[in-house]
Amino acid sequence: MKTKAAVAWKSGAPLTIETVDLEGPKFGEVLVEIKATGICHTDYYTLSGADPEGIFPAILGHEGAGIVVDVGPGVTTLKKGDHVIPLYTPECRQCKFCLSRKTNLCQLIRGTQGKGLMPDATSRFSLDGQPIFHYMGTSTFSNYTVAPEISLAKIREDAPFDKVCYIGCGVTTGIGAVIFTAKVEAGANVVVFGLGGIGLNVIQGAKMVGADKIIGVDLNPEREAMARQFGMTHFINPKNTENVVDAIVQLTDGGADYSFECIGNTKVMRQALECTHKGWGRSIIIGVAEAGAEISTRPFQLVTGRKWEGSAFGGARGRTDVPKIVDWYMEGKINIDDLITHTMPLEDINKGFDLMKAGESIRGVVLY
Amino acid sequence: MKTKAAVAWKSGAPLTIETVDLEGPKFGEVLVEIKATGICHTDYYTLSGADPEGIFPAILGHEGAGIVVDVGPGVTTLKKGDHVIPLYTPECRQCKFCLSRKTNLCQLIRGTQGKGLMPDATSRFSLDGQPIFHYMGTSTFSNYTVAPEISLAKIREDAPFDKVCYIGCGVTTGIGAVIFTAKVEAGANVVVFGLGGIGLNVIQGAKMVGADKIIGVDLNPEREAMARQFGMTHFINPKNTENVVDAIVQLTDGGADYSFECIGNTKVMRQALECTHKGWGRSIIIGVAEAGAEISTRPFQLVTGRKWEGSAFGGARGRTDVPKIVDWYMEGKINIDDLITHTMPLEDINKGFDLMKAGESIRGVVLY
Repeated sequence: MKTKAAVAWKSGAPLTIETVDLEGPKFGEVLVEIKATGICHTDYYTLSGADPEGIFPAILGHEGAGIVVDVGPGVTTLKKGDHVIPLYTPECRQCKFCLSRKTNLCQLIRGTQGKGLMPDATSRFSLDGQPIFHYMGTSTFSNYTVAPEISLAKIREDAPFDKVCYIGCGVTTGIGAVIFTAKVEAGANVVVFGLGGIGLNVIQGAKMVGADKIIGVDLNPEREAMARQFGMTHFINPKNTENVVDAIVQLTDGGADYSFECIGNTKVMRQALECTHKGWGRSIIIGVAEAGAEISTRPFQLVTGRKWEGSAFGGARGRTDVPKIVDWYMEGKINIDDLITHTMPLEDINKGFDLMKAGESIRGVVLY
Repeated sequence: MKTKAAVAWKSGAPLTIETVDLEGPKFGEVLVEIKATGICHTDYYTLSGADPEGIFPAILGHEGAGIVVDVGPGVTTLKKGDHVIPLYTPECRQCKFCLSRKTNLCQLIRGTQGKGLMPDATSRFSLDGQPIFHYMGTSTFSNYTVAPEISLAKIREDAPFDKVCYIGCGVTTGIGAVIFTAKVEAGANVVVFGLGGIGLNVIQGAKMVGADKIIGVDLNPEREAMARQFGMTHFINPKNTENVVDAIVQLTDGGADYSFECIGNTKVMRQALECTHKGWGRSIIIGVAEAGAEISTRPFQLVTGRKWEGSAFGGARGRTDVPKIVDWYMEGKINIDDLITHTMPLEDINKGFDLMKAGESIRGVVLY
């Protein structure tokens, strides 16, 4: 079949809208009509050329929502008409990782996914006979896409695509880090470093589970108002604060119970660890640091009871937990609508990347 | 009263055996006749002058066992004749830390203990009217010592002092890190870096809870035999191994479930983290690094599910858990006898320190 798609030909270049060829789903695969997709900073990271694992030409996009239009042989859990969110972290439920019950990092198809290919090591996309690579197993910058069955979360049919697509990455990464990775308990004191989209979702996750103090840290004072709307109780701007770690320790009578780094800055990661409480503080790294950057601290910080951890895709098991988060949105427990700053047709997708390139904190959604 | 004690007058100098003055126990304090005490590397660390918090003159020693001979006013949980192990990590059961249920690091008397004083900010020891400082709240290099009630674990009366004194530090630090900090489960793969006294206790803790592979790493091949006796199943000597991390990852089909650093070397701490399994590996730092040394790694190690943690006094609550460990010893679940390499009278205590200074891995016990 043919589908309209935005193709990334090489790093640094604008995407071009093309009508590409899409092979139907093979064994264990599903054809999905994407109805909406977010533009995430990770797409921009790959497009910019900074991602050492970036492969071109490719169809980017990993934050989508859509409808099943066809299933390949062997598919048993999805059928035509099902509403789905594609998952860049699949959930096969049978690999060592899924069966460990200790991680969401399913590894069944990691090898091929990392190479921009379906599990049989080929691509479904092509143009003029030349293959185009998949991206993160999702390629949502295409009106139609093929994904493995294990890479699709079935969601309720009354959920609006143009909002819940954001659950495919940012919402789950932030809220999940609080609920699935850290398991923050009611009454805990929480610190969030970086009040972009991920940080705001950490904040609303902390509010949802009844955290006490929810302290936000950001250099940009313009981010304070929306963070407070999402549940932040205290704001610290490092520009106006002599020692951020000391300020947090004082505000929390000894340190935060949990901290979340949502920037990707290794110096901030150290602050995030050291501002947590002696004896039990846990610091969760969410942000992606630049290649080669390292975190460091004195081991005494850990010997005296702090724990340094990380979270990917919010610790969420895609097929199990993503539908729950969609429910939470539909029940009004979490707010997605106010997070989305721009919507645009696929033809305008480069405008979204241009705003990111200019340093704006946008959360854009592309509608098909 | 008078008591025989080994006094550390200044860093680097031999201890001298003196008859010092000891005031009786004040409110909430207990007078203990020390029957046996281990000589621990931490005593040597302080005596050597490397400990930035070392205070002189002091009566060192923190790995003892003895009998209560008198109690001060307000003491309700101990009486004359009780057998006890002094605790450098007390357990008051009423401070924020004890009540958190998340840590063993009771902080009630930390301020005065760190200054070499009893909770009322004075010392009980003196010679010719000049005060001598306490050490770690225990000062077990004295035939009689005074300690706060909350710094004494009551133990069974049939336990031999010359063996269970070692539970006052080394045994609990190693076994506790496995059982109370990491909570290692049966079937787990465990790696232990450093096969000195702490490492051997980690090994026997891992064996006790049914760990599967127990891999020991040490530069000294002479340590292999005893480590195998204590439960080690595989030995890696970094001198003969191109890449220790890779070797462990291969041996464990992806990485260890738990690793323990028992050396205090920050480069080894990094290896200990990076040899653990993606998704759920946990690395516990036990060793004390030199002042100013820092650990570092790429944050990706944590984002992909490894956790970096630490353990102090094995995560054991002194009054609650130390008596249990004494029971385990008396029931034959753990071996202490074969760990002790030297016994000597107090008069020979400098011989123990001389052997440590010469780099020997001794675990000496002083008998009164």
